[in-house]
Parts: sequence; structure tokens; C-alpha cells
Amino acid sequence: GAGLPPQKQPRKMISYSERARLCSHPVTRKLLTLMEEKRTNLTVSVDLTTAAEIISMVDKVGPYVCMIKTHVDIIEDFSQDFISKLTDLAVKHNFIIFEDRKFADIGHTVMQQYSGGMYRIADWANITNAHSLPGSGVIQGLKQIGLPKGRGCLLIAEMSSSGNLCSGDYTKETVKIAEGNRDFVIGFVCQSAISDDPEFLHITPGVQLSSGQDQMGQNYVTPREVILNHKSDIIIVGRGIIKAEDPVIAAKAYMEAGYSAYMERMS
Amino acid sequence: GAGLPPQKQPRKMISYSERARLCSHPVTRKLLTLMEEKRTNLTVSVDLTTAAEIISMVDKVGPYVCMIKTHVDIIEDFSQDFISKLTDLAVKHNFIIFEDRKFADIGHTVMQQYSGGMYRIADWANITNAHSLPGSGVIQGLKQIGLPKGRGCLLIAEMSSSGNLCSGDYTKETVKIAEGNRDFVIGFVCQSAISDDPEFLHITPGVQLSSGQDQMGQNYVTPREVILNHKSDIIIVGRGIIKAEDPVIAAKAYMEAGYSAYMERMS
Repeated sequence: GAGLPPQKQPRKMISYSERARLCSHPVTRKLLTLMEEKRTNLTVSVDLTTAAEIISMVDKVGPYVCMIKTHVDIIEDFSQDFISKLTDLAVKHNFIIFEDRKFADIGHTVMQQYSGGMYRIADWANITNAHSLPGSGVIQGLKQIGLPKGRGCLLIAEMSSSGNLCSGDYTKETVKIAEGNRDFVIGFVCQSAISDDPEFLHITPGVQLSSGQDQMGQNYVTPREVILNHKSDIIIVGRGIIKAEDPVIAAKAYMEAGYSAYMERMS
Repeated sequence: GAGLPPQKQPRKMISYSERARLCSHPVTRKLLTLMEEKRTNLTVSVDLTTAAEIISMVDKVGPYVCMIKTHVDIIEDFSQDFISKLTDLAVKHNFIIFEDRKFADIGHTVMQQYSGGMYRIADWANITNAHSLPGSGVIQGLKQIGLPKGRGCLLIAEMSSSGNLCSGDYTKETVKIAEGNRDFVIGFVCQSAISDDPEFLHITPGVQLSSGQDQMGQNYVTPREVILNHKSDIIIVGRGIIKAEDPVIAAKAYMEAGYSAYMERMS
């Protein structure tokens, strides 16, 4: 009713749009809102190596995604022109830009890596991410740069590669660092939900329509498993879309698989 | 005597030059040999943000170091010309180049990050490093690129920042990954010696002439503590030298402190 503040409830009970209203971080609000508007929880990881290929792919899959994930440090011809085109496409297709930098150094160093160099990530990426491995200093450093620019950060709480060392208390400690930095940390890169707090997003990589493993230990799970069983919010798909014969058909299929799993979870 | 193969002994018993003869990796051999020739176990971390400043600093401190450590992704005007100048200085002053990239992604991604992008790290860095966090896939990926080029990799086994999560079995698991990849992994970034194998280098950051902590949880130890008590091989000094009023005087002081601690340990 009018005047009553929205109540926090367990995350699995509420829709993306309801959660948007519970969130104070502008990036989380915008992301959850557009997810329900566009009916997609799909992020495409556009791991191509020339600016032209990436821009062409993003323009194709843009209508079907909530986020585009980049690794700018694999682009052979990175330039400010590339960033202009990418941010124009983010407006045209209404998506969030997530630079998957996996910052993993001490605070003093990550400040410089996030703000400076050739890439100036903080100037254009709505979201970046960091390993919690170095301790809370990594977030203290990134926050000094990102907070004034209204950026958000995901903490990597679990990895999808075989034999990874994010075990034992690692995930718990990661949640603690997030809880201590809610003005900047907006959620987790993880394999399944690790916090009941509706303000934290759960974003899961290593997604393909059939499960399996690549040559270097990357494990794949399906969109339905990720959203319905593991209670994550967003699926990240890379090779399953960008290496598909028709990336648009593949993007639509992943979008449909991810969103129908979300609808099923809500029902 | 002539004809007898050199015997492996506990690392603390043997000199850098004796160890050089026990090592099969070309980068380790070269590094240990030049350390004894130049009488230095000092690595300077040249965290400046323009190519000109870095080249000028490297030319100044080059005579006193065994390695120069870079973060190329904080350089505003990175170019191939910068790399040419840096590699020329490495020949002029006889040092090894170590790009402190802290790779921390799945194998498929780090391959592209190491070989490609604007920085093409594998083309010029004798040594880079990686977190063991993603599991052995990160090394499988990097090795595919680095092995044909004769590069070496350090695994980050411990960090120097407060509240870091490299605890419990993390260090043990890191040593296992290294032991399984001796053709490419040449040692560890760590706080103290974690392996008795003379082929593995131990390299320790967070070193200043007086111990303490920075604003973002970075902890400092002295050269003598690192080399004599923690039995590490190489000290990494950043702000203690590059922010000193006279970096040459500071570099000489750290070189002397580090090497005399090594001589004391040998005696």
C-alpha cells in the first residue's frame, strides 16, 4: 500500500522488478528493471579479439541481453572509438556493460589498474569484478575510484573451473567483504546463490545448453540448472553464442531458456 | 668432481650460482646467474604511469637489480616503442623483466590475455605470474603460450595484504600445481619459503627498510627478515625506491640490505 516501505523477503520469492525497488545501488536498480522489461537474464561474454567483430556481435545480440561482458585486454585494436561505439550500443539496446577484469592485487595497485592505463575501465564499465583473495583492501582500492562514478563491483565467490581453490571459508569470507561494502559491491560471480539478501545479484558463468567440460577444465551447466536449481539471477554465455553458426538464434535460445527458468521459479 | 652430476640439496645450503647449475629452466638459470654476478637479489616494482618516467627510472636503478617488475596496464601511453626501450635496458643492465599481471581466469581466457590485446605480454616479459585460485587450468592455458617462447611463470602462493584468503591448504595446493608444471612454473610469489626444491624461486613483495602498513592493508617487512628469516630468494621493493627522494641511493641501500642478508644466510 501507499506509504508502506517495501519489505525485504527471501530472494527467491520476489521478482526482478520488485527487487529493483528494494535496491539502493543505481546499477543494480537499472539492471533488474531492464531485465524484467526486456524479459532476459542473459549476459553474453563477447570474447572476440578485434573491435569490429565485437561491435558487430554486440549489435546483433544486444536486443536479447541484460549485460554485455568484455575482456578488453584481449582486443588487438582497442581504442576510445571502440568504447564510444560500445557505449552507444548500450543505449540503443538498453544493456549494462560488465568488464570481467578479475582484479586481484593489493588496493594501491588496483586503483591504478581500474582508473588508468590504456583502458581506463572505470570510465566506461558500469560493472567490473574482483577476486576477494587479496582481502578487503582490493575493494577499498577499487571503491575509491568507482564510487564517485556510480560504478558497481561483483566479487568472485566461486569459480567454474576444475580444481579451483575457492573452497572452505572462501565463499563465506567473500560474502562478509561484500556485506561490509554494500555501497560498491552489488553481488557475486558464483555457481549458485550464496546470500539471501535481495540487494545482491548472483551471476553465473560457464553456461551452455548442454553440460560438459572444455579442454582446460572449464565446466558447463545449463541455464535451467543455474536459474531454477542453483537460484542464480543471471547466466553468462560465451562460446555457446559467439561461436554459434547463427549467434542471434543462439542468443534467443539462451534468453528463452534462462527467462523461462526464472518464470518457473517465480510460479 | 668432473663427470659427477650436481646433487640437489636443501635450498638454504647452496648459493644462487650453484642453484643456477641445478635448474633446467633457462629463465631461472639466467636469473640466478646474474644475481650472483651483479650481487643483487633486488627487484624494483616500477609502478609509474608514463612510459618516459618508467624508462628513466629503469635506466637509473637497472645496475642494482636482478629484475624489473611492471604493471603495464597502468601506463597511460603504452606503446611498442616503450617495450623496445625496456628490453634494450634489460640488455644494457642485464636484468629480467617480470610483468606482474596476476592472471586469475580460466585457461581459455588467460591464453588470450597473455598472448593478445594491446600488451602482448608473452612477447616481451621473461616472467609473468598467476593466482593458483582458478586451479591448474590457468597454468595449462598460460603454458600453451609461454612455453614455446621460453617464458617462466610464478604462482602466487601467499599475499602480503591484510585479511587475504590464501590460507589453509591454499599454499599447499599451489605448490602441487607448480610441481606438476616444472617446465613453466619457476617459483612462487610468497611471504616465506614454501618449497625445499632448489629449482623453485621464492620472491617476496611488500618490502621496505622499516616494517609497517599502508592505508589499504598492505603490510611491509624488511629485506633482512625476508631473506634471512623467511628464507626467500628475491625481494620486491616498490614505493621504497621509486618514491624515494633519490631512487639510486635507495636502490643501492635495498640491494646492500638484501644481499648482505643472503651472504649472512650462506655463511
